[in-house]
Amino acid sequence: MKIVLIGAGNVATHLGTAFKKKGLEILQVYSRTQESAKVLGKLLGVPYCFTLEDVNTSADIYIYAVKDSFLEATLRKVCIPNAIHAHTAGSVPMAVFENHTPRYGVIYPLQTFSKNKEIKMKEVPFFIEASDKETEEKLREIVSAVSDNCYYLSSEKRLLMHLSAVFACNFTNYMYVLASEITTEAGIDFNVLMPLIKETADKLNYLTPAEAQTGPAARSDEKTIEIHKKILANKNNLYRIYSLLSESIEKSAKSR
Amino acid sequence: MKIVLIGAGNVATHLGTAFKKKGLEILQVYSRTQESAKVLGKLLGVPYCFTLEDVNTSADIYIYAVKDSFLEATLRKVCIPNAIHAHTAGSVPMAVFENHTPRYGVIYPLQTFSKNKEIKMKEVPFFIEASDKETEEKLREIVSAVSDNCYYLSSEKRLLMHLSAVFACNFTNYMYVLASEITTEAGIDFNVLMPLIKETADKLNYLTPAEAQTGPAARSDEKTIEIHKKILANKNNLYRIYSLLSESIEKSAKSR
Repeated sequence: MKIVLIGAGNVATHLGTAFKKKGLEILQVYSRTQESAKVLGKLLGVPYCFTLEDVNTSADIYIYAVKDSFLEATLRKVCIPNAIHAHTAGSVPMAVFENHTPRYGVIYPLQTFSKNKEIKMKEVPFFIEASDKETEEKLREIVSAVSDNCYYLSSEKRLLMHLSAVFACNFTNYMYVLASEITTEAGIDFNVLMPLIKETADKLNYLTPAEAQTGPAARSDEKTIEIHKKILANKNNLYRIYSLLSESIEKSAKSR
Repeated sequence: MKIVLIGAGNVATHLGTAFKKKGLEILQVYSRTQESAKVLGKLLGVPYCFTLEDVNTSADIYIYAVKDSFLEATLRKVCIPNAIHAHTAGSVPMAVFENHTPRYGVIYPLQTFSKNKEIKMKEVPFFIEASDKETEEKLREIVSAVSDNCYYLSSEKRLLMHLSAVFACNFTNYMYVLASEITTEAGIDFNVLMPLIKETADKLNYLTPAEAQTGPAARSDEKTIEIHKKILANKNNLYRIYSLLSESIEKSAKSR
């Protein structure tokens, strides 16, 4: 199975690194940004290109890890009908390939990938989907080389999976951003929050998120909520978010 | 140092357990709820009471871990002037003791405590404050018996510390709650999100929260945001939170 990686961002970099480690054959890396293509090509020790006309046409599978908005334009130009084409996006239906090529699918890794931060790929859940049984087996083969957790999931459910991940990861991280705005302004080292942040995540191994909910809003501690709101009164963004989330936590605690 | 615990909730339970483990002498447990007093008294193997008149008057320190709204009423009744009185609340100023007793302070553990979930107390940061140097030393002595991280912090900064913890812990956990609402409705096991949740927290050991921010809003992926909003259109609570946080993440990403 010869692989061409279309894209050289965080997902492509982490996937490519994991494939290489497991001895999968990466034929080439493409990125529309010359510098990114070069960096990932060198990292993986494989040729790279930055115009779609130069994409190697002899691979067995083309894996697309490009911005959702570029995906359709990119695959329309690549279109190598003998190969499998698979994207890695959470919110793009598999049908995006339908009119362009006969064998296609999705490899969606449910993880947050950042530069300079290694990932235990073995533990990452991958959600695959395919145009046909044979293609599904090929995708499962590639995924199973790097991860112990490969599941089949429809486009419709993958979209919901991705949406839940936005809450569990992106919005969660934004709560860390807001917490760090407060500690920075107070001259407190953000790192003292780390045991709390770790424990908040770790709790979910023992309790449901609803059971794990603590804090002023969960116990309807109006006095504390009012004190907090007063502190945030002239910080529009923090104030609005604090108010909406507290109100919402209180409601859901009461409805239980 | 003989200790009386005023309160028998999550904080009192975890503190009491840690004190006992380190051989500190707990004289008695008080809770206004007979059942809670009994449970914690039995757990710690010490006498308990549920009326303030029965509180043992011969302790060296009274540690209050009661709801903020009960704190003042409780300490007004306990008032044993020879002893140290310390509360454990993030958002209550130390001055709450001022007119009731001469030696007082605060022991604020920055952690989320839930029933049936053990904590590594050694790693929990404690923020102390005291009416005088001697009292401060006594509080530091007690805290240092159970934790490696004892800091002095003013009431004003402790309030900001607590507020940042609401974002880093309570609101973060609420994001997990909302994620689980989506997976439950989709018939997907919430546990597939665990590696993502763990990694989102773990990343902060390597990156600042702002550097770690990923997702549709961070990359201004309007198409995906619109798809997500459409899914949430008839879920008022999720829709409002998704919209506000996405808008806010986008703005802060652009301002960098």
